[in-house]
Amino acid sequence: MISQYEYVARQLARTKNKKHEQYVVTGIVHRLGRDDVKFITQQYVKRESGRALTDLYFPALNLHIEVDEKYHEKQVSCDQLREADIVDATGHEILRIPVTGTLKEINTRIDECVSEIRKKIDKLGDSFMPWDMEQEFNILPHIKRGYIDLKDNVAFRRITDACNCFGHNYKFYQSAGAQHPHNKDTLLWFPKLFENDAWKNQIEDDEETIWELSRDIDKVENHFKRWMEVEERDKRLVFPKAKDNLGIILYRFKGLYQLDKNNSNLKDGLCWKRISTRVKTYPQKDKSLEI
Amino acid sequence: MISQYEYVARQLARTKNKKHEQYVVTGIVHRLGRDDVKFITQQYVKRESGRALTDLYFPALNLHIEVDEKYHEKQVSCDQLREADIVDATGHEILRIPVTGTLKEINTRIDECVSEIRKKIDKLGDSFMPWDMEQEFNILPHIKRGYIDLKDNVAFRRITDACNCFGHNYKFYQSAGAQHPHNKDTLLWFPKLFENDAWKNQIEDDEETIWELSRDIDKVENHFKRWMEVEERDKRLVFPKAKDNLGIILYRFKGLYQLDKNNSNLKDGLCWKRISTRVKTYPQKDKSLEI
Repeated sequence: MISQYEYVARQLARTKNKKHEQYVVTGIVHRLGRDDVKFITQQYVKRESGRALTDLYFPALNLHIEVDEKYHEKQVSCDQLREADIVDATGHEILRIPVTGTLKEINTRIDECVSEIRKKIDKLGDSFMPWDMEQEFNILPHIKRGYIDLKDNVAFRRITDACNCFGHNYKFYQSAGAQHPHNKDTLLWFPKLFENDAWKNQIEDDEETIWELSRDIDKVENHFKRWMEVEERDKRLVFPKAKDNLGIILYRFKGLYQLDKNNSNLKDGLCWKRISTRVKTYPQKDKSLEI
Repeated sequence: MISQYEYVARQLARTKNKKHEQYVVTGIVHRLGRDDVKFITQQYVKRESGRALTDLYFPALNLHIEVDEKYHEKQVSCDQLREADIVDATGHEILRIPVTGTLKEINTRIDECVSEIRKKIDKLGDSFMPWDMEQEFNILPHIKRGYIDLKDNVAFRRITDACNCFGHNYKFYQSAGAQHPHNKDTLLWFPKLFENDAWKNQIEDDEETIWELSRDIDKVENHFKRWMEVEERDKRLVFPKAKDNLGIILYRFKGLYQLDKNNSNLKDGLCWKRISTRVKTYPQKDKSLEI
């Protein structure tokens, strides 16, 4: 695992392409000067207005900062989004920092933004979770809380950890599917939701619909029939495989999806529709039962 | 002219190649948070140990910061130095910031460095010159002071301004040589001290010796004879033309040099030896005398 300093330095180095973005982003991070507040630069987000890229994201605060050079939204192409980790930004706050005016004016705006961030942390009080790189992918808080909700933007580094939030007790599990230990009709699914060697899967921009289609012509029909006619597991708890902005793999919770047999077809593939954005978690089973 | 913000943002964007350098340099600048303290990133310097590159330079404090990834001096190749503006760092202080340890430790080092900078500014008291981009190339302080000294690292944006420090009253003057108004034996010289279309001039690493040689074979002998035998002006006040780290042209004072006839020869060219690092300045002449 990389160190916290390495993480922070690499996050800031990602802003290197644009001097304005770099100035403001490094300004906020350094003037805030807190090593217990996690930030992510250039985070892909899903908003009501579509997918976008924000310059600086504080996950613990549901807050995004955008450095506005000319006030136009950064549009994101499909190509950029391939494999990208996309955060649900519904209800998140966005602070915009224009980079017009004098150095003093821009610095004042940065300082005001930092005050705003400090206020938000204070307001959270005890519910503010200090950033702890060792613990941030720990599954116990999710089990203790009793559920995982889309709006908490939960992600795991390993399939094993996601499985273990629902009652499994794996030491190491690495497959795109795992049976939900408590719900017979549900598969824990860790798909690649972009075109790859084996699959032509995709998730729609609003993330309400996922299409699942094999690229192997010989397999398409069998796969389709199996899930439409044989399988009784018509629900999937979806954690797509993605890469975060430093290129590290993660699996981010997208919700519970159900097979929509009416819309599924051989050409587009199986159609999965989101039916819930919050799912129950379960304590791990007795370690002796599973290897 | 670029704005102060543009200047600062461009200076910080120059650190983009190395994440450690970027982290520490932006950290110092933002945590210092003063828009009245000029800084330069990646400044070429002349030291006793040779020419080098420092990561962050505060001209008003004669202070350099080096981000040490592995404590080895950044050596500089001749190619990098072509056209580069080189500052005399004799007697300057260097603070080294190692980027080892935790984020907290590195941040603490940055904060200590910022405290050190604040102390230095306080210590200067009234003699601290606040950074003012409009005024920093103003010639009046040099005339008022009565001299220009190498250790003050004086530079001008225009040949005109350098000339006007010695009694000229030019509105616009653009030639590599100008007569010193008060010293008959002295030429104000604004050479390119690197190989270019017309000249093969060079300055030695210790900056004590300058070699002047035409590239035009037909001219070499005439030029040599003129200065060795005909001209009585055997002294030159030298302001080489250079580009600063943002690519903007400037003319930095290097000292008063005298022709060394013993060492001059047709192959290497005229040999100029530094005889003084401090020269007298003069009030501008009556404006009616010169156009």
